[in-house]
Amino acid sequence: MNLRLIKSHAKKVGLPPGSSVLVGDKKTENIEIELFDYNQDSVTNNRIENLDEIAPLRESESVSWININGLHDVDTITKIGSAFDIHPLIIEDILNTDHRPKSEILDRHIFITLKMIHIEPETDQILIEQVSIVLGHNYVLTFQESKGDIFDTIRDRILHNKGRIRKFGADYLTYALIDTIIDTYFLILDRLNDRLEVLENDLIDNPDQAFITEIQRIKRELLFLRKSVWPLRELISTITREETPFFTTTTIPFLRDLYDHTIQIIDTVETMRDMISGLLDVHLSSLGNKTNDVMKVLTIIATIFIPLTFLAGIYGMNFEFMPELKWHFAYPLFWGIIFILFFGMMFYFKRKKWF
Amino acid sequence: MNLRLIKSHAKKVGLPPGSSVLVGDKKTENIEIELFDYNQDSVTNNRIENLDEIAPLRESESVSWININGLHDVDTITKIGSAFDIHPLIIEDILNTDHRPKSEILDRHIFITLKMIHIEPETDQILIEQVSIVLGHNYVLTFQESKGDIFDTIRDRILHNKGRIRKFGADYLTYALIDTIIDTYFLILDRLNDRLEVLENDLIDNPDQAFITEIQRIKRELLFLRKSVWPLRELISTITREETPFFTTTTIPFLRDLYDHTIQIIDTVETMRDMISGLLDVHLSSLGNKTNDVMKVLTIIATIFIPLTFLAGIYGMNFEFMPELKWHFAYPLFWGIIFILFFGMMFYFKRKKWF
Amino acid sequence: MNLRLIKSHAKKVGLPPGSSVLVGDKKTENIEIELFDYNQDSVTNNRIENLDEIAPLRESESVSWININGLHDVDTITKIGSAFDIHPLIIEDILNTDHRPKSEILDRHIFITLKMIHIEPETDQILIEQVSIVLGHNYVLTFQESKGDIFDTIRDRILHNKGRIRKFGADYLTYALIDTIIDTYFLILDRLNDRLEVLENDLIDNPDQAFITEIQRIKRELLFLRKSVWPLRELISTITREETPFFTTTTIPFLRDLYDHTIQIIDTVETMRDMISGLLDVHLSSLGNKTNDVMKVLTIIATIFIPLTFLAGIYGMNFEFMPELKWHFAYPLFWGIIFILFFGMMFYFKRKKWF
Amino acid sequence: MNLRLIKSHAKKVGLPPGSSVLVGDKKTENIEIELFDYNQDSVTNNRIENLDEIAPLRESESVSWININGLHDVDTITKIGSAFDIHPLIIEDILNTDHRPKSEILDRHIFITLKMIHIEPETDQILIEQVSIVLGHNYVLTFQESKGDIFDTIRDRILHNKGRIRKFGADYLTYALIDTIIDTYFLILDRLNDRLEVLENDLIDNPDQAFITEIQRIKRELLFLRKSVWPLRELISTITREETPFFTTTTIPFLRDLYDHTIQIIDTVETMRDMISGLLDVHLSSLGNKTNDVMKVLTIIATIFIPLTFLAGIYGMNFEFMPELKWHFAYPLFWGIIFILFFGMMFYFKRKKWF
Amino acid sequence: MNLRLIKSHAKKVGLPPGSSVLVGDKKTENIEIELFDYNQDSVTNNRIENLDEIAPLRESESVSWININGLHDVDTITKIGSAFDIHPLIIEDILNTDHRPKSEILDRHIFITLKMIHIEPETDQILIEQVSIVLGHNYVLTFQESKGDIFDTIRDRILHNKGRIRKFGADYLTYALIDTIIDTYFLILDRLNDRLEVLENDLIDNPDQAFITEIQRIKRELLFLRKSVWPLRELISTITREETPFFTTTTIPFLRDLYDHTIQIIDTVETMRDMISGLLDVHLSSLGNKTNDVMKVLTIIATIFIPLTFLAGIYGMNFEFMPELKWHFAYPLFWGIIFILFFGMMFYFKRKKWF
Repeated sequence: MNLRLIKSHAKKVGLPPGSSVLVGDKKTENIEIELFDYNQDSVTNNRIENLDEIAPLRESESVSWININGLHDVDTITKIGSAFDIHPLIIEDILNTDHRPKSEILDRHIFITLKMIHIEPETDQILIEQVSIVLGHNYVLTFQESKGDIFDTIRDRILHNKGRIRKFGADYLTYALIDTIIDTYFLILDRLNDRLEVLENDLIDNPDQAFITEIQRIKRELLFLRKSVWPLRELISTITREETPFFTTTTIPFLRDLYDHTIQIIDTVETMRDMISGLLDVHLSSLGNKTNDVMKVLTIIATIFIPLTFLAGIYGMNFEFMPELKWHFAYPLFWGIIFILFFGMMFYFKRKKWF
Repeated sequence: MNLRLIKSHAKKVGLPPGSSVLVGDKKTENIEIELFDYNQDSVTNNRIENLDEIAPLRESESVSWININGLHDVDTITKIGSAFDIHPLIIEDILNTDHRPKSEILDRHIFITLKMIHIEPETDQILIEQVSIVLGHNYVLTFQESKGDIFDTIRDRILHNKGRIRKFGADYLTYALIDTIIDTYFLILDRLNDRLEVLENDLIDNPDQAFITEIQRIKRELLFLRKSVWPLRELISTITREETPFFTTTTIPFLRDLYDHTIQIIDTVETMRDMISGLLDVHLSSLGNKTNDVMKVLTIIATIFIPLTFLAGIYGMNFEFMPELKWHFAYPLFWGIIFILFFGMMFYFKRKKWF
Repeated sequence: MNLRLIKSHAKKVGLPPGSSVLVGDKKTENIEIELFDYNQDSVTNNRIENLDEIAPLRESESVSWININGLHDVDTITKIGSAFDIHPLIIEDILNTDHRPKSEILDRHIFITLKMIHIEPETDQILIEQVSIVLGHNYVLTFQESKGDIFDTIRDRILHNKGRIRKFGADYLTYALIDTIIDTYFLILDRLNDRLEVLENDLIDNPDQAFITEIQRIKRELLFLRKSVWPLRELISTITREETPFFTTTTIPFLRDLYDHTIQIIDTVETMRDMISGLLDVHLSSLGNKTNDVMKVLTIIATIFIPLTFLAGIYGMNFEFMPELKWHFAYPLFWGIIFILFFGMMFYFKRKKWF
Repeated sequence: MNLRLIKSHAKKVGLPPGSSVLVGDKKTENIEIELFDYNQDSVTNNRIENLDEIAPLRESESVSWININGLHDVDTITKIGSAFDIHPLIIEDILNTDHRPKSEILDRHIFITLKMIHIEPETDQILIEQVSIVLGHNYVLTFQESKGDIFDTIRDRILHNKGRIRKFGADYLTYALIDTIIDTYFLILDRLNDRLEVLENDLIDNPDQAFITEIQRIKRELLFLRKSVWPLRELISTITREETPFFTTTTIPFLRDLYDHTIQIIDTVETMRDMISGLLDVHLSSLGNKTNDVMKVLTIIATIFIPLTFLAGIYGMNFEFMPELKWHFAYPLFWGIIFILFFGMMFYFKRKKWF
Repeated sequence: MNLRLIKSHAKKVGLPPGSSVLVGDKKTENIEIELFDYNQDSVTNNRIENLDEIAPLRESESVSWININGLHDVDTITKIGSAFDIHPLIIEDILNTDHRPKSEILDRHIFITLKMIHIEPETDQILIEQVSIVLGHNYVLTFQESKGDIFDTIRDRILHNKGRIRKFGADYLTYALIDTIIDTYFLILDRLNDRLEVLENDLIDNPDQAFITEIQRIKRELLFLRKSVWPLRELISTITREETPFFTTTTIPFLRDLYDHTIQIIDTVETMRDMISGLLDVHLSSLGNKTNDVMKVLTIIATIFIPLTFLAGIYGMNFEFMPELKWHFAYPLFWGIIFILFFGMMFYFKRKKWF
């Protein structure tokens, strides 16, 4: 999970604002445009090859979901944009795949840009891709960076008329798309939670340096999640507070449910940040304890043996007149004193609970 | 007290939203539906076996409390839900026993989901169970995960017409249920307070590693309580601020009292968090002091005996021409010097208040 | 100053809400009811023995201050309550002497519950007692836990018609009572400030463990003061913002002055908390410095004498062929080397500013 | 700069509220009343000896600035107060020279109390004095603790008709007075900034205990400045938001400028607090580094010489059968081993970058 | 990047407010006034030498961009100010090149003062210059401290009619200018990010003192950026919320885009501050770990060799009756014991994971 904090606007400096330039990594595949056109009774699903087919969809009574895979062909995107009357600055936002998640309610449509997370099942790697959604009257445009997404269950529900999706309008489709994206965030939270638990268990035994860098990484991913969810929350609360022609009252309860999910994510992120700060306390405390333990070992050894060595040093002196040296029982007596001192100090440290 | 932070939405990924699936641990007992139907004059208390008996209760003039124990039979719950016109997404919330506490004011009823804490008297173990309450016109539905709750005093008050409960409506019953749940939170706070006091007393003598993990555990439980109480506070302040048909003016003062309790819990949680952060300061400081003390012992011993050992080493040398070795009083003189040095340094450390 | 954070609601669990039970320590003296009935021209001051005398006071045109000492006789309190139409839940709050300070504007009266602090002059001990004030039209009820309070100057002003008190109404009396209570909070702040200053002076010389527990104690008392003052602030700002029939425009400036005092207390508490956090920084820093100093002593001694001891050890060896041992000036030369090393290292440490 | 946090209300405890008593240090000079009465065309500047001269000023059409130096004569102040209809509680605030800065918009005038800082040029000492300003219709009263202030440039501008001051009304005069006071706050900030920079430079070389007490002192002075400026900010934002008869629209832009200054002060205080917290981090880190360095010296010396001393000790033993002692080249060989060990360890520590 | 926190107001103390005095460093070049006067069809670009040419521009229907380079000639600035009816206090703000970024909506124009950052390409040095913008009806005044800016692309777009700039009015020009300034802030963020990443990589290996001072420097620059962007954000949100005659509805979406950028900068600054506080945690932890490691080396060496030295000391004693000294195998036995102790302790430390 590579979480870019800021991407240079370098490509764009010096260009007039609203110039459509792809900011982000260029993908080389072709742009693919996929169409789902459905109402309660029928559904069409085909690939659009000719851009002229798009404009009429805007006026059609059936719900049209136009999914664009690939953003590298700026011309095509611009043409689609003008077919749906999308403001050049919005097109710019769609093309800037490093844009922070945001939502805007405009006159002719609602614009939402989000980060979609999918976990490649084979490699277990986490891929982040930007998805921009434009919800207008009876149409939904989705712009993805490349082919491959997490919306197959939605396609399936549309094609086979499962659940409510065909009965409801474009607003419900938008909800379903966002809901699918948000659901994967929970998976990420689950994984982060697992990693935190591993850290927590390791911490007591082994508070090493790796711990703290892992903590930093988790913190950054939590930040990423919160930043991804936040504008969504704002959007939904705006929509449910004010009247918008784009969302019907039957879809509002679903939005509220989504809102609940975003709050739960923000909540959980907060809780995990709390846990992390707790873990840091534990870490610092256990570092201090370790130093203490090391010091105690040193002090015990030094305190016991330094005085004894001094004593041995005394009787290693070469003064001519040292009467003790001549005593017969001096040597055993010396050992006796040594033992008394040794066990006396051991007892002392034991009582001080040093070991 | 096992405080789950997040539960995987795994069971639900891929399902259309609003699909009723039980998220949480499956309990195997049968669903039990208990009915209290009462007004000021009479009371009926029986078990409902046939779901068809439920629908008429919605229209009856007497207050009906329908308590459902067990959520594992999704069909039954869904049927009850549609009898009372409950939105599929609310049913979903009821079935998701890992849902965070929340409250929602809807057109036909108020929905509240809470965590009920009961302490098993035999094992002194804390059990957390989700209780969802649906308050409509003259009826209250309560959904519990399993049999066994803390509402026996309420049942008793209804059956024997104690206090105001039979004189007031469904709103007062709802209040009484929530009040009972909140009261147990105070018990938990009491216990946490006891544990904190134990920690506080132990801390000075024994700032070991166990302290800090216990602190983390208490912090997490406080977090749990705050999160449990918060939405309740929001709900009550919404109800007392706006007009709702569900709560009558006679019940409002009781709600305000409940509000007071939630504030007191939040307050106490805040205070305890403050105390904990204070304890962490004490802990770190006492760790530092301990290291200091250990260091002092080491330094005193080493500072006294290392120079003395050096002196002894001097007169252990084998130079042929060391005149002192021949002196008659050299050895007692040596001891004299040793004593002077020893007591001089002891005096020095005493004055520096090192011991 | 024993600051109870939470008191168990244990006595009340299982009772219907609004049941009047005394929560708190039971005092054994009799309940004493003291009456001041006054207008600008006359004043009556007597003890009420018969509860029937109370009800008419509610309607009288003169200002009636009914001071109830002692809460243990629940019946009497309840009777007084019903004479003045006080809601059972308010009576419950009055009887719960562990209630957090709060204020409530009701239809028939304003209810305020506060902690009164008085310092026993003989023992210099701090006593905390709950005072509940009910301000209605032309009457003020005060409920105290036991006899003995800090209102004697007010009694004196009423009896001898000093200042404005007899010219103004029940609202001014309420103000005067609260003002007297708040004034003692400043005394407590003064004392805490003194204790902080003592700590601050001691800290540099003597950063021991006692410091940090004293800090914790002061923090808790500051918290207590803030919590005591906060609801008062809310109340006054509500009263001055909205119209209430209970406070006349002539009393409002006095309330504003009181508001000022509460802000000053909160402000000072904030400042002292800031100071405390500063002291903790100083404490940690001086702990670190102390460890550093101890380490330096150890290092200086060890670094000087360990190499010298090694040298002495060399010439204590018993090799047969050690030519230096035979040299005539070897021993003085040895001492010369010792001195050079000793002063060289002393000079080195001096330059490193280790002592 | 002696920053009193709280002053005992001791003198006032027991007195009815609104009693005018001087709280603060009693100054012994006489009260001096200075009058500037001016309009665009003429100016009178004299000392008022007779209090009866004051009352007519209230009604005069010209702008009257009455500056009262000295607050110890409570009677005089009270008389002036009643001449201008000032509420007894405001008089109390004027006399309480330990009052926190505050501002109040009343019916007949605006009341502002501020701390004036002047730096005595000879001694470079900072003096804090309370200035209370009462702005009414065409008059400004200023109450100072004693003679000597920072308003001489304003007097000069009035007398010699410099700038706009004579063209504008009493509101502009008030602005000019406050502006002069606020300007000196910037001087204080400058000085604090200088002290912080000194600290910052010293810190790296010399992180001793004095640092942390100086930091505490600076923090307290910053707090003082923020508290001084805050109510001013509130006042101005209230005035510019609401209509007041006391400020004309021509003066409003100047107030906005003043507001800007208060924000800049608050901002700078915030920034400096941030810097201080950064310095504390640096301090703690450099303390840790110092301990580390001391430890390294000790460890290097001990690790090198303790094993060598052991070796020397071995060949100082008196066993009869120690073949090495007899070898001819044992002694030079011994030195060889010593050198190898010595340089080996030096190399090892060098590679570990310990010195 | 020299970030001045506060600049002394010294030059201005004692002057009447609104006096135009240049606060900041005096630059010695001449003031240069550059004019762009354009509409959709034509453009004039010349240097204004005579100040009388300026006044008519205010009324002209074409868009006039008057760019003033150099602020040292106070007279000229004042004349321009009065030609455009700019309030003296605004002129004062323009001349005070240490003014904090701010924006104000006035009756006749909008005033914005910002910090422009340009990076000299040759020296790679960062220069900060104040730019003040006055946007009126059909004119834009820009005041710069000296020649040389980052607006060449805008000049180019005006001259060669690129993009929308000539089609839109003065409001769009203002937007374009601010947008160009803000874009460079992203460059600074990029650089800070690079520096943070360098620090992050170095930290683990080498947590030395330089780290923490660099951290402080980065923190200060982040603060600078946030303070620069903040008032812009306020301005734009005010403009988009309220109606102003200065911005037309066609420019509003561009402002909203700008707003997005300011939020992104504030966001990134927040994130980087978070990262920095994380780095400080890592730093402190790695300091603790280092001390621990040093201690371990010392303790291992001392714990192994001190007891062995004691043993050697024993057999260096000169008692006459020490039977072991006579034993034939005493010496090899002694070495045997030494080896057993040595490897025993090594094993013990290994098991304790000390190395």
